[in-house]
Amino acid sequence: MEGTAVVLAPNAYRTDSAKTAHGLVRGSERYRVVAVVDPESAGEDAGQALDGRHRDIPIVATLTEALARGPDTCIVGVATKGGRLPPELRVVLLEAARAGLTIVSGLHELASDDRHIAATGVRVLDVRRPRPAAELHFWNGDIAQVRAPRLAVLGTDCALGKRTTARLLVHACAQAGLKAEMIYTGQTGWMQGGRFGFVFDSTMNDFVSGEIEHAVVACDKALSPDLIVLEGQSALRNPSGPCGSELIISAQAKGVILQHAPGRKDFKGLPGWPIPPIEEEIQLIGLYGAKVLAITLNGEKLSKDALIDEQKKLEKQLKLPVVRPVEEGADALLPVVRQYLKN
Amino acid sequence: MEGTAVVLAPNAYRTDSAKTAHGLVRGSERYRVVAVVDPESAGEDAGQALDGRHRDIPIVATLTEALARGPDTCIVGVATKGGRLPPELRVVLLEAARAGLTIVSGLHELASDDRHIAATGVRVLDVRRPRPAAELHFWNGDIAQVRAPRLAVLGTDCALGKRTTARLLVHACAQAGLKAEMIYTGQTGWMQGGRFGFVFDSTMNDFVSGEIEHAVVACDKALSPDLIVLEGQSALRNPSGPCGSELIISAQAKGVILQHAPGRKDFKGLPGWPIPPIEEEIQLIGLYGAKVLAITLNGEKLSKDALIDEQKKLEKQLKLPVVRPVEEGADALLPVVRQYLKN
Repeated sequence: MEGTAVVLAPNAYRTDSAKTAHGLVRGSERYRVVAVVDPESAGEDAGQALDGRHRDIPIVATLTEALARGPDTCIVGVATKGGRLPPELRVVLLEAARAGLTIVSGLHELASDDRHIAATGVRVLDVRRPRPAAELHFWNGDIAQVRAPRLAVLGTDCALGKRTTARLLVHACAQAGLKAEMIYTGQTGWMQGGRFGFVFDSTMNDFVSGEIEHAVVACDKALSPDLIVLEGQSALRNPSGPCGSELIISAQAKGVILQHAPGRKDFKGLPGWPIPPIEEEIQLIGLYGAKVLAITLNGEKLSKDALIDEQKKLEKQLKLPVVRPVEEGADALLPVVRQYLKN
Repeated sequence: MEGTAVVLAPNAYRTDSAKTAHGLVRGSERYRVVAVVDPESAGEDAGQALDGRHRDIPIVATLTEALARGPDTCIVGVATKGGRLPPELRVVLLEAARAGLTIVSGLHELASDDRHIAATGVRVLDVRRPRPAAELHFWNGDIAQVRAPRLAVLGTDCALGKRTTARLLVHACAQAGLKAEMIYTGQTGWMQGGRFGFVFDSTMNDFVSGEIEHAVVACDKALSPDLIVLEGQSALRNPSGPCGSELIISAQAKGVILQHAPGRKDFKGLPGWPIPPIEEEIQLIGLYGAKVLAITLNGEKLSKDALIDEQKKLEKQLKLPVVRPVEEGADALLPVVRQYLKN
């Protein structure tokens, strides 16, 4: 563990904007989370509020209360539109910096550019700080030499659980004696302890494919895993930033787990921009050269029963395994993975 | 015109690595080109060597010879793998800087980071210098308010003439009384005088869609064109960097002109990575929500007759207009454009 952290998600913990906080509460090998700050949900347990599982991480109303639990690190737990650092967050970060905490942020607007925060002299880790071309890799075809098959977790939208499904799958594999390694592609994946990967959306477009390839090649060489699981970003047809084809085309993932939220009609934050039918998404992934092996569901806006109904309906409709990983665990994906590794 | 330029393409002018030089020789509203430096093709006319049309731009062997023609600007005319600035180019740039010329480069490795060049005090324009998040736009859906239809020029590979076809089309439209405006997405497009656009591949991935949208919205507001032509980058399935879906999904281009080089079997610079069939590409574009309206051909590696044979074959096979814009001009695309504007 690199630190003991308080995670900021003011008035947002119960929304999917707090996906970084949710990921850190679910589990991290990099930071031990001791408190979440969100006045709106204060008094609850962060695990309980997230998925009904108590994790002994209190949600508190203020940073001052969180400091009593002895953190050495303060992490921004929300994703804001366009990655801006809003004033209400900036003021709490400054407070944390003045208390001597290391600041960790995955926003595009860099915390280290705040002169008040910088003046405190604390360590500021901006996980989405863009790297210069000289530090980046260009795609060169080395992917063809990688031994471990790649499996991409893509989704029909952003912020619907791709990373969580990928982590659950990797853990389920480990428990079943399969050595799966995850390639992180976002700031939260790094914060959760990801060893191989890069931050997709703050990378210069020309180097995205090379960075994926490099991460996969390095992971394969270092660890010789049985399977490499690639965390997807956004969705192939999300208008605010289509992503995903790189994982199939550049990292040569021939299998895909497709994460879907049947209760979500429009792309996140984009009313009037409907998510296209899932059958089309499967067809699109097929044209890129990969096969959808299973669907994983996010239960957003659905009751437990309604989600199970959707699961049954989709299974029939798509003739594919459909799994609710958060509710059922990812063990149901193991036969799919085993079959994929055989081919 | 902003300057009078010598363009560097040492030992590369006759290869498609010199695509920036080729674009500038074909035409620029920003720079008047007075010479191209390439010892291998020295003595020829740059237009003649490019496409058989004399343009009174001599190819000379050395920068010294070029200086006699009175340039005030020195432009890097080649695209290198991964955008590195190779030593043999660096030394000529330094010579140009010492002669007092403004340096213009579209490589990822920045000329202004060279301390010898910087020490000369000349102006150095690194067109691919990445811009920070604060200067970039995030996609917000304003595209829905744009009046002018968008037409994207996509391709089945990189470096096969998308930009040139887009420019020829815009010029053909102008001559026919149609006000078409081009959105540039690469460094050469800017060097050719593009007013609206951005450099796709040096933009942080998260802002690519917003930058396209912003360029289109700004162009539509400022000029009220009849048509907006979007310059594509790379190809949807180029493993070294798949691109293009943003133009359809984020800029909502409903029509596509698809540039293709029937004589090219593998992706540029990637032997063993074949370009997939063009029918599949059309299907893929369709799944993204756009219609391929015409195919435009690049005659690379084909004799004139062989290219015409391919043209006829593809017309029959795809039941679409197939045009050789460099040889025939882009007028043959006008009926396609007029029909597109009617719908």
